[in-house]
Amino acid sequence: MDKLYVIKIGGNIIDDEAKLASLLRDFAAIDEKKILVHGGGKLATRLAEKLGIEQQLLDGRRITDAETLKIVTMVYAGYINKNIVARLQAENCNAIGLCGADGDSILAHKRNHPVLDYGFVGDVDAINTGLISSLLEKNIAVVFAPITHDQQGQLLNTNADTIAQEMAKAMSRHYQTELIYTFEKSGVLLDAADDTTVIPEIQPSYYRDLKAQHRIFSGMIPKLDNAFTALNSGVSKVRIGKAEQLTDLLKGTAGTSIIHER
Amino acid sequence: MDKLYVIKIGGNIIDDEAKLASLLRDFAAIDEKKILVHGGGKLATRLAEKLGIEQQLLDGRRITDAETLKIVTMVYAGYINKNIVARLQAENCNAIGLCGADGDSILAHKRNHPVLDYGFVGDVDAINTGLISSLLEKNIAVVFAPITHDQQGQLLNTNADTIAQEMAKAMSRHYQTELIYTFEKSGVLLDAADDTTVIPEIQPSYYRDLKAQHRIFSGMIPKLDNAFTALNSGVSKVRIGKAEQLTDLLKGTAGTSIIHER
Repeated sequence: MDKLYVIKIGGNIIDDEAKLASLLRDFAAIDEKKILVHGGGKLATRLAEKLGIEQQLLDGRRITDAETLKIVTMVYAGYINKNIVARLQAENCNAIGLCGADGDSILAHKRNHPVLDYGFVGDVDAINTGLISSLLEKNIAVVFAPITHDQQGQLLNTNADTIAQEMAKAMSRHYQTELIYTFEKSGVLLDAADDTTVIPEIQPSYYRDLKAQHRIFSGMIPKLDNAFTALNSGVSKVRIGKAEQLTDLLKGTAGTSIIHER
Repeated sequence: MDKLYVIKIGGNIIDDEAKLASLLRDFAAIDEKKILVHGGGKLATRLAEKLGIEQQLLDGRRITDAETLKIVTMVYAGYINKNIVARLQAENCNAIGLCGADGDSILAHKRNHPVLDYGFVGDVDAINTGLISSLLEKNIAVVFAPITHDQQGQLLNTNADTIAQEMAKAMSRHYQTELIYTFEKSGVLLDAADDTTVIPEIQPSYYRDLKAQHRIFSGMIPKLDNAFTALNSGVSKVRIGKAEQLTDLLKGTAGTSIIHER
């Protein structure tokens, strides 16, 4: 099987022109097949503020009402997605920017919470790998905005980490797939305040120990749970680290590798 | 050669929820291969107003400054494009929404006017038909937003009529291509104020006569010149008419057909 990288980049890198340019250069230089999943950054929040659309929060999570959905569709699937694609083209990397409605590639349903209404938030049901594979086979990098659809005409705001995970899981049927989560830290840290305490490798037993000893920063736990789920669903390796170190993350010389028990 | 329809829809239909829904149902029902090129509508203007971005006009044409480019990228390639795709999926029409940067499909250059600076406006240089054809061959309808790129990382605002024309011309190398321009009138009218005076067919000699007699509404002349250029570049037929009558336009029982001299 050919190798495929599924790389997730977050808001911190999208909001920083110079860092984004550098990351896209690194991404363009990858010889293997590749998918980029991007989040949103502060642009959507800033646009909502300018338009006087109040952000509703529920348990600290943003509610996606109709106006907010409009904004994230514009900013994520329009502005950010198309600018990333244009910049990759300038780096001689043929790329195509999609959301989940395009080619019916990511099917989701509106989150159905017993008590809370998150609005137009989608939970992923299925990834249609056919079109994505055929684009990759043409050596086109696929760039996904975190917007999905429900096949009934409704677009849905969807967590980019989840899309990256589901994408990697689904694509691992066709490719030897590595999932790379980039964020603002150098990896999973033993001391959340000290960026030099990166744990180079985490196996399931070590993860259980770290959790039992409360040595994992609580904000990392959903990310790590996601990583192990991906690993148990066919993804060959998961790496977590700094977007600025993408090339080293790919080589395995930076960040934290989440791996099977040896 | 297989048949292909390249259909351009304008702002008047995009701004009208019910009309757009009906048009997309008609479009979804087309059995042949199909490309939809959409314009912008009033959404971009309204968003610019809300954000206090002043629209600069030059000779009656909108200048695309950096802020305006951001807005049209968001609205055209994000909001409008993705909503059209999601609705087509709901009509069981597999579709993919692209701008010219995606797959390097529409290459353009920033307009270089000796005196006036139109800002980030692109004039089309080339259409890469390879990816588009391969999508059509998978029975995926391709939906284009009127945003192109210059391969140097710059997105450019581009006239949707021109994109439709260039698209039809380029695709006519691979398909028997018909170009359909929809707008708010029932076709080319002998009396611009009377929608029942549709000219069913215009051949080059008749067009020359009509122009010589000043019987063509001046606003129609660029559209008709475009239509004849397309016809002379391999497009098999051009039709002009009302978006609400798409099915009849395709059958040739409504609108104006621009055809070769018989």
